Amino acid sequence: MYPPNTKSSTGTTSAAPRTIAVAITGVGLVGSEFVSQLLSVSQPNPFRVVSLSSSKHTLFSPDGLDISKDSWKDRLASAPHRNPEDLANDLASLVRPGQDVVFVDNTSNENVAGLYPTLLASGVNVITPNKKAFSGESALYNRILQASLDSGAKFLNESTVGAGLPIISTLKDLVVTGDKIKKIEGVFSGTMSYIFNNFSTSQPTGPSFSSVVKLAREKGYTEPHPADDLTGSDVSRKLTILTRYIPSLRPALPLPNGFLSVPTTSLIPSALSPLTTPEKLSSAEAAEEFVSRLEEFDGEFETMRGEALKEGKVLRYVGVVDVEKGEVKADLQRYPLTHPFATSLGGSDNIVLFHTERYSPRPLIIQGAGAGAAVTAMGVLSDLFKLV
Amino acid sequence: MYPPNTKSSTGTTSAAPRTIAVAITGVGLVGSEFVSQLLSVSQPNPFRVVSLSSSKHTLFSPDGLDISKDSWKDRLASAPHRNPEDLANDLASLVRPGQDVVFVDNTSNENVAGLYPTLLASGVNVITPNKKAFSGESALYNRILQASLDSGAKFLNESTVGAGLPIISTLKDLVVTGDKIKKIEGVFSGTMSYIFNNFSTSQPTGPSFSSVVKLAREKGYTEPHPADDLTGSDVSRKLTILTRYIPSLRPALPLPNGFLSVPTTSLIPSALSPLTTPEKLSSAEAAEEFVSRLEEFDGEFETMRGEALKEGKVLRYVGVVDVEKGEVKADLQRYPLTHPFATSLGGSDNIVLFHTERYSPRPLIIQGAGAGAAVTAMGVLSDLFKLV
Repeated sequence: MYPPNTKSSTGTTSAAPRTIAVAITGVGLVGSEFVSQLLSVSQPNPFRVVSLSSSKHTLFSPDGLDISKDSWKDRLASAPHRNPEDLANDLASLVRPGQDVVFVDNTSNENVAGLYPTLLASGVNVITPNKKAFSGESALYNRILQASLDSGAKFLNESTVGAGLPIISTLKDLVVTGDKIKKIEGVFSGTMSYIFNNFSTSQPTGPSFSSVVKLAREKGYTEPHPADDLTGSDVSRKLTILTRYIPSLRPALPLPNGFLSVPTTSLIPSALSPLTTPEKLSSAEAAEEFVSRLEEFDGEFETMRGEALKEGKVLRYVGVVDVEKGEVKADLQRYPLTHPFATSLGGSDNIVLFHTERYSPRPLIIQGAGAGAAVTAMGVLSDLFKLV
Repeated sequence: MYPPNTKSSTGTTSAAPRTIAVAITGVGLVGSEFVSQLLSVSQPNPFRVVSLSSSKHTLFSPDGLDISKDSWKDRLASAPHRNPEDLANDLASLVRPGQDVVFVDNTSNENVAGLYPTLLASGVNVITPNKKAFSGESALYNRILQASLDSGAKFLNESTVGAGLPIISTLKDLVVTGDKIKKIEGVFSGTMSYIFNNFSTSQPTGPSFSSVVKLAREKGYTEPHPADDLTGSDVSRKLTILTRYIPSLRPALPLPNGFLSVPTTSLIPSALSPLTTPEKLSSAEAAEEFVSRLEEFDGEFETMRGEALKEGKVLRYVGVVDVEKGEVKADLQRYPLTHPFATSLGGSDNIVLFHTERYSPRPLIIQGAGAGAAVTAMGVLSDLFKLV
């Protein structure tokens, strides 16, 4: 189904058609959608899929797998298991002048992220919506940067923040062209966006906090255990990723322990924290108990909502990177009813305001759905097109 | 000041440092700012300037001009005149494997745009904020596409719409990853944005139309002759550019005469059209007379404002690309006081809403300053970085 890789033998700069070898790991919601989008790219498709893998099965063929949108799941299900390190070696062996190779990690797995430095060092580009590597500890982050710098292989992760929204690429463009970032402020979590857009409005009364969380969970806007969202750690991970693209913050915020060093306000009532330990987060029972007991704390949230409204404000869970103050935080804050976070936001949209030297006094704003398989896969695929 | 071009002789894929040869023409506000930004790129600067030119003077040196932010204007002023076609030939001769060459056109000149097909055919990439080529007649547009396709040289024009805002790149990403554009709707003119943000608000009274136009002119937000903005042709040019990136509109809207085929509402009172002929547009006297006589029509604009507000709406001059209806137009329309065009817009900001299959029911929104030398030059420079 893919045309063979055509190499130019003329030595001219003519753009001889050639395909980029793509290895995809992770076939969950985002991964499946990504495969589907990739196989639908209009002809001539500049990519050929050389590998597909899950935690259990691996397909690999240097000339391109003979797969279609209908067949790939069955083919993969009957494939053998393969050690990820061996796959990394096989991909490295494909790299040669005129043959770009890309590893697309659609998992959210920390061990897969640990493969990036080896892959990059061997010249394999890495593209991923997996936040683990860039929001984690500095050691892995630094090894990724160094490997990419040494080999020239690229590491692209647009969809780690805001899914398909052009947030990281815009930040990179601002920085590389010499603009000075003053402050980045945004609603970075679709879950938090949905919860507070519905909980805290200009109306004097509204639904209870626990009922909004329940509804968000029913609509699939939260993780299976909503505490996973309410800790704010997803937001602080995204802030860590953004912060690392801002040169002036690098010395000020070495972030030795990764995202843990971003001051983060958790919305978990302390009485419920025993239901949100790492083990409990993967327990369906604990999740149910957490959601039902959240009601006990509705009064506290209602008080916060009322106090904000008395000032003509709404509550929003935001991430702030204040470069001038050297402050990064994930927090529940109050915004005037006239602020874009109050007027413009709806659904589970993300919104990001870039206040810079050039975009001043009015910021550059990007807004839209910041989660969901279709837009996340789109962010991954648009990164892939940046290599063409 | 630039390191010599280092070529890899190892035949490996290692990223040997090399610089991209950049030829810049046009040294007006945007051009000067661009040179300044380019010379400020952090080391190692991946670019070397091989040519600088204005309509009168041309500097050229294949190994890189020895210029600095302080010296380039004097150097250029004492350089000889050179035929642009000769410069194009010289640039073509620099193209070889491993040596990318870019022509950056910071003019708004139609003749310079006419050079693009030749440059692209010879392998020279073209980057420009000049709207003339992509919003003009189909013959030139088609020759540009064909030359770029044949040689593989790139044509990038992010800053033709919204200056430094990522509007064209976002549209391209949506299209190439298989999203379906339903409608693009936006305020694309900084001048029109300023005028209507100030003229038409939620307040029952406001300044007269002519006084707002006068103020906009004094602040430098309009062309020297404000009629240049009030015709809406700047908006229709931008719509033509966007439309050409939407595959499904290409057959429906062949736009044989370029931007002229976009239905465009002019805000010039017909009694004043004798003051807006092509010759009069460059006459300072005609401009003065136009601005002072605009007062006679304040009543008409006030009526429109009042009628909109009676419906709870404001007036905004917008561009609409309605893919589902196959309709493209630049028009003065009414928007509810709760619409982002009413609530979120201020200053001379641009705003663009992308309604797509994936970004539905809520659109992807991009907003910010859409004009001005600093952000336009930034858009050009970020295009240049896409080639690195």
